[in-house]
Amino acid sequence: MGETVENFSEWYGNILERAEIYDLRYPIKGCGVYLPYGFKIRKYAFEIIRNMLDETGHDEALFPMLIPEDLLAKEGEHIKGFEDEVYWVTHGGKTPLDVKLALRPTSETPIYYMMKLWIKVHTDLPIKVYQVVNTFRYETKHTRPLIRLREIMTFKEAHTAHATKEDAENQVKEAINIYKNFFDELGIPTIISKRPEWDKFPGAEYTMAFDTIFPDGKTMQIGTVHNLGQNFAKTFELEFETADGGKDYAYQTCYGISDRVIASIIALHGDEKGLILPPNVAPIQIVIIPLLFKGKEEIAMNKAEEVYNTLKEKGFRVKLDDRDIRPGRKFNDWELKGAPIRIELGPRDIENKKITLFRRDTGEKFQINEDDLLDGINNTMNSIMKTIKEKANERVNSFITIMDNKNNKNNNDIEALIDNVKEILAEKKGVVLIPYDKNLYNEEFEESIEASVLGITKCNGNEYIAVARTY
Amino acid sequence: MGETVENFSEWYGNILERAEIYDLRYPIKGCGVYLPYGFKIRKYAFEIIRNMLDETGHDEALFPMLIPEDLLAKEGEHIKGFEDEVYWVTHGGKTPLDVKLALRPTSETPIYYMMKLWIKVHTDLPIKVYQVVNTFRYETKHTRPLIRLREIMTFKEAHTAHATKEDAENQVKEAINIYKNFFDELGIPTIISKRPEWDKFPGAEYTMAFDTIFPDGKTMQIGTVHNLGQNFAKTFELEFETADGGKDYAYQTCYGISDRVIASIIALHGDEKGLILPPNVAPIQIVIIPLLFKGKEEIAMNKAEEVYNTLKEKGFRVKLDDRDIRPGRKFNDWELKGAPIRIELGPRDIENKKITLFRRDTGEKFQINEDDLLDGINNTMNSIMKTIKEKANERVNSFITIMDNKNNKNNNDIEALIDNVKEILAEKKGVVLIPYDKNLYNEEFEESIEASVLGITKCNGNEYIAVARTY
Repeated sequence: MGETVENFSEWYGNILERAEIYDLRYPIKGCGVYLPYGFKIRKYAFEIIRNMLDETGHDEALFPMLIPEDLLAKEGEHIKGFEDEVYWVTHGGKTPLDVKLALRPTSETPIYYMMKLWIKVHTDLPIKVYQVVNTFRYETKHTRPLIRLREIMTFKEAHTAHATKEDAENQVKEAINIYKNFFDELGIPTIISKRPEWDKFPGAEYTMAFDTIFPDGKTMQIGTVHNLGQNFAKTFELEFETADGGKDYAYQTCYGISDRVIASIIALHGDEKGLILPPNVAPIQIVIIPLLFKGKEEIAMNKAEEVYNTLKEKGFRVKLDDRDIRPGRKFNDWELKGAPIRIELGPRDIENKKITLFRRDTGEKFQINEDDLLDGINNTMNSIMKTIKEKANERVNSFITIMDNKNNKNNNDIEALIDNVKEILAEKKGVVLIPYDKNLYNEEFEESIEASVLGITKCNGNEYIAVARTY
Repeated sequence: MGETVENFSEWYGNILERAEIYDLRYPIKGCGVYLPYGFKIRKYAFEIIRNMLDETGHDEALFPMLIPEDLLAKEGEHIKGFEDEVYWVTHGGKTPLDVKLALRPTSETPIYYMMKLWIKVHTDLPIKVYQVVNTFRYETKHTRPLIRLREIMTFKEAHTAHATKEDAENQVKEAINIYKNFFDELGIPTIISKRPEWDKFPGAEYTMAFDTIFPDGKTMQIGTVHNLGQNFAKTFELEFETADGGKDYAYQTCYGISDRVIASIIALHGDEKGLILPPNVAPIQIVIIPLLFKGKEEIAMNKAEEVYNTLKEKGFRVKLDDRDIRPGRKFNDWELKGAPIRIELGPRDIENKKITLFRRDTGEKFQINEDDLLDGINNTMNSIMKTIKEKANERVNSFITIMDNKNNKNNNDIEALIDNVKEILAEKKGVVLIPYDKNLYNEEFEESIEASVLGITKCNGNEYIAVARTY
């Protein structure tokens, strides 16, 4: 989003429409359509996390969307956390249902109901399953496409059960690691914090969260990892025979990622010309545009097809744009849509056995030898990924303010601190890291700064309270 | 399912559980869980149809699951076809909704609402989109896993809009062709018929349907292609400017395939020992079982790992079963789960540079030279696919009875015909093809035979009325 922060919201809405990612003109607030181009970004992004989960022993499965009221209400804290935002199905045809059915807001209860049937003895553990599904929240707040939806079209939720507390702890670590790698693959910098007690997932022992910072300086939660302890296991009777013949309840974790990761790819990397997509999620990684000079059209088209076939064969997502419009319009279209590399093929280059490459991320144009095509493309892709990450890191870091480690011994100091935090949040925006002080770590403080406490985070070996205005 | 027809239903329920495909013990009738193994079969099967659709210019997208009541009710015939089986969301939290929301039973109405926003002029056409989503029917009939569900977990629905009637007709042909190829890839024989007027899709001009025949002799509808004409287009105002500057409404088609294709793979190919999976959808295509003789364990394990790595590298879905249980139990497990090829590696074979292959479909065991591993695997896979198809064809054909082309001029003849059809359906079961006679082609006749009229089908150049007992 370049340097302009003020109009981010407008820019974001605009790009979703113009780059054909998501159409929000559906007649239900908070429900929209993933358009084909957006759908592909979603597909490639979630393919990355699917592979990471598969490689670490997670199994993809698919659980029902409807949850009977009594099942959802079984875990007391959990239902309290959701009861105002659950959609209820009350009728089948004209017939009132005996038991109301909830549209899943998340799937702890249906999955743990099934786990009870699967867990008898310690050798049945661990269970590590995940699904990628739609979930629903009756949002009363202002909705935003891919950020705050009533139908969350893409929720990747993983659920695990273990024989020991230590195994569950290790699973939390594994999950954090997977998410770190995933966001890194997408060039999305994050701040990892332990959410405060008053903001943890309903029913969890504790919640670890990934927040990123959007170009308007507000943070967005884009991933969470929960250690559920034995809370749900006791409610759902996930009791098993231990190795030494005793009985215990399973130790559980769960962790999720949603459409917000797509919103973040768009928001963090884009600029005033449109999308800038990391090559690994770009629906079109390379667009080939023949420059058709009169009388030499055939030379350019033949070369374009040759290059297209070479790249296609190597598995690149490549497109030959042979529309009958001026090259300049094609350039704009593909810059808007964020294709990482553009290849221009004109008669002079072809004669000199050169190929002109254009990088969407930096706007650089340069030539390579025709013989070096594959190396040139591979190197450029790697360089693009690196540059995209560096830029995003730089911008996110510029939004982080680390406060000095002063002792806040008396109330005057605390008031000064509050004023200081409020000032930074108003002017520089972003995240303020306040040296950890247990006297500050409460809801009263959160209220006084008129912002959110993200939680406790570590930075250079020190503990901080991270605060920010959030989405 | 071998030769036993009587206990198909029991066999089917049993195999879903034992082969870990689908767990139906969820506390809502008609809602269940795709277990990891079943999920993978689903994934590979739908990957095949996705590729076929992508290659023929269809774009995958994702539309909302909730449909406002007024939108669903817009096309009169359409809603009449569904109103008894629609689930209604009436509340968000404790708040009654202003407009009731339907869980999509199918997505004509939401998709065509959006198409209105996308179609202005003939160059906007054709539009060919599809999605793979969950849909819902409040079934009052007996539900059956993957066959008759309340949550249809997998519905691949394609929707198209065209500038001319002819284009829509051609689209119907393309769709039929895609489905033909798809079912052929899975070795599922089908009967294609034009559904009778009284059984076409609500709102369509006509419906073409794919039925297969299950081992119990009942038919199952596993794919439909609808020509919608301009019915929906007029309701949803899909008006566009034609090439010659006039106005017209779009011509539309839609076509769908569901979880029933998974049920068919299981039902049509399996036998008394369990699943027999076509290699292209088998989660494990090749299982390697080292035969560990005392003192020679290392030789077998090393060779097993070597073979595993060779096959893995070539892209096969291969598993080395190194569990500490007897080989016989492993054999049974993987025969139950339908792995197409088993490789047994014992010390004597290894010494002789031989590899023993076992084919799940025929039960044959044979040796190949170690050096011929890849060729041997490829040839065997091809042969398995061929044999699976042939067997399924044979069985389905054995269920088809073609009646003589007698003229049924008077009522006595018609009554004799009815008796004859009833007798065949009771004894031989399957599909009866009755030479087309317009006097027979009505609901009264359907009632009299106490079975279903599938529709009109062609066989050896003649037209028949196809009738059967259906799922």
